[in-house]
Amino acid sequence: MITLSSDFGSPYPAAMKGVLLANADSDPRLVDIAHDFPRQNVRAGAFWLREVLPYFPSAVHLVVIDPGVGTDRAALAVRAGDHALVGPDNGVLVPVARRLAGGDDIEAFEIEDDDAESSTFHGRDVFAPAAAAVHEAGIDRLETLDRCSPADGIVDFEFPEPALAEDTAMGEILVVDGFGNAITNIPGSVLDDRFGETVELNGESVPVERSYAHVETGEQLVTVGSHGNVELAVNQGRGERAFGIAVGDSVRLSRN
Amino acid sequence: MITLSSDFGSPYPAAMKGVLLANADSDPRLVDIAHDFPRQNVRAGAFWLREVLPYFPSAVHLVVIDPGVGTDRAALAVRAGDHALVGPDNGVLVPVARRLAGGDDIEAFEIEDDDAESSTFHGRDVFAPAAAAVHEAGIDRLETLDRCSPADGIVDFEFPEPALAEDTAMGEILVVDGFGNAITNIPGSVLDDRFGETVELNGESVPVERSYAHVETGEQLVTVGSHGNVELAVNQGRGERAFGIAVGDSVRLSRN
Amino acid sequence: MITLSSDFGSPYPAAMKGVLLANADSDPRLVDIAHDFPRQNVRAGAFWLREVLPYFPSAVHLVVIDPGVGTDRAALAVRAGDHALVGPDNGVLVPVARRLAGGDDIEAFEIEDDDAESSTFHGRDVFAPAAAAVHEAGIDRLETLDRCSPADGIVDFEFPEPALAEDTAMGEILVVDGFGNAITNIPGSVLDDRFGETVELNGESVPVERSYAHVETGEQLVTVGSHGNVELAVNQGRGERAFGIAVGDSVRLSRN
Repeated sequence: MITLSSDFGSPYPAAMKGVLLANADSDPRLVDIAHDFPRQNVRAGAFWLREVLPYFPSAVHLVVIDPGVGTDRAALAVRAGDHALVGPDNGVLVPVARRLAGGDDIEAFEIEDDDAESSTFHGRDVFAPAAAAVHEAGIDRLETLDRCSPADGIVDFEFPEPALAEDTAMGEILVVDGFGNAITNIPGSVLDDRFGETVELNGESVPVERSYAHVETGEQLVTVGSHGNVELAVNQGRGERAFGIAVGDSVRLSRN
Repeated sequence: MITLSSDFGSPYPAAMKGVLLANADSDPRLVDIAHDFPRQNVRAGAFWLREVLPYFPSAVHLVVIDPGVGTDRAALAVRAGDHALVGPDNGVLVPVARRLAGGDDIEAFEIEDDDAESSTFHGRDVFAPAAAAVHEAGIDRLETLDRCSPADGIVDFEFPEPALAEDTAMGEILVVDGFGNAITNIPGSVLDDRFGETVELNGESVPVERSYAHVETGEQLVTVGSHGNVELAVNQGRGERAFGIAVGDSVRLSRN
Repeated sequence: MITLSSDFGSPYPAAMKGVLLANADSDPRLVDIAHDFPRQNVRAGAFWLREVLPYFPSAVHLVVIDPGVGTDRAALAVRAGDHALVGPDNGVLVPVARRLAGGDDIEAFEIEDDDAESSTFHGRDVFAPAAAAVHEAGIDRLETLDRCSPADGIVDFEFPEPALAEDTAMGEILVVDGFGNAITNIPGSVLDDRFGETVELNGESVPVERSYAHVETGEQLVTVGSHGNVELAVNQGRGERAFGIAVGDSVRLSRN
């Protein structure tokens, strides 16, 4: 199985599928993760990949969110647990690789990309052929691949850490999902004993509920999203608009 | 085969695919129906599922349009003909189940969902595991599933009926498709002998044609859409804008 | 393998998938190319299909960009190299067929469509059943298909040719991709010895670079896109807006 993730929209991902199928003799299943990740946004991609890919059984994951295509940024193949990730060395692979590895080591290999057909579409010309090669060789045999050598080190990426005190949590908005739910970096556990009550969110009192429909349509709430973090939402509406909040904005959550 | 339908946009459907593949040992084909169904809109989902799923051979259909996620609405597995449907008990499954059953009985089972990992994403945590279990057990063996029991009754859903008289039909707009075609609940048969002529539509004379390009680019027409209903359209344009009409609006079609 | 391309958006393509799977006993792989091709735009569809489909191994390609559905335009099955294309006779299949055939002959067959279930959705009622039949018969056996006969001739389509002089190239914008890159019909070879320098583009001096990130974020550049043509772009921005240019606009590129 090979999954595909990109910020390409359409129809460029189809060219990657063609290359995968032309290069992988074993006829792998292809699964689209998403191709509408926020454009050239490493942080959003890193977040969603970490949340989604661990639900898959062992697979090769092709990831192309690549604002530095055609520059000297490296191309990587990474082994993490029983998964492999193929994509640019800009940090987008790191959080999901750590989660997939589950505390074990991550092995990173650099893929030669000097003679790619294009300088603008390494998804098609570098990463898709590499993902097909990883699939054919086997996830535990990256060291056998042509044109791959152990990476000296890779670009790291970490999400900002929240500051948690006894009755206050300080964090920020990491991403806003398609429903308008504003997802923070504050762990949902801070709300464990507050369901059905309220918290103070940036100075305003907001109900804490287990899901959206526990408040009236159009009303604001704070909940724990499916990613396990505190989320600012509106029942059948857009949380980020109602709270007037955007990615990167600070969130102060007080239990008083 | 398991099909997937939701109003999730992206990338949440990918987490459901991961769960399906991790839970279904028989390596089922996955087919996306759509993930951009109008948000939390049971009526639009019910319409499109009824129009699309009957073209499929026997399959398990995972459907997650679920404004009541995390409340006490039930989770259902439904057998209808040689198909199974898995989704929330809010009516969205009912019109397609009736059509798939073709006059035969529909069997509905309630799925336990009390200990789901999240309260906000039952598509991933309740419905996808249930759809995988239905697929593995077999569509005609829902009664053998763990955590499933016969449902006492399910939430019904019926589309509004048109009022048909000899020379007049009164109906309403059920949905507007992506092209801007405004689809009514009036059966196309009322136009059977009127192609190439005109009808009066909410008081204005409009040509009746078999397809869009029978009128000039940008001109309005009334036609029979692929769903068999009367449709208000514009050749290479948006019918709902030209007719100034929206979902739920009344349509009076007169043959005089 | 059967690929699907359309301008249908959603959820109409799913009905085509149902029909393909109900009609193709051999359980073919289905691959979506795109369903958000510019609406009823033969030129844009023809461009993208020519750029994407040649990356695939041998396949049947179902293509439905069909502003003339329900009129007397013919329905075609075309053999080009070891690929088959099924779609309307409006030119959309021609550039990709020529490229897939690689100088060899293209064979075109006309598909009977007089008794289709609908007049508005031949993707579902004519082209999908025909694509399934082509898949089952074999790409080199189109002449054995029921309801198919050799076409007398097909609607041609050619992209406008650029005018290339020693130091000046005159062309036009063929399409704008989802990133906002404005793709011309001028071959990238005119830039071969200019990387790192500038050209005059409609009278303004613009840097020529191998990829986007060679200029600062938000700055304009001219590059060679993955299709091999000259492309007007902005690093992490939208080229068509920065250059104030749209599909069909003239581009004068001068090396002085």
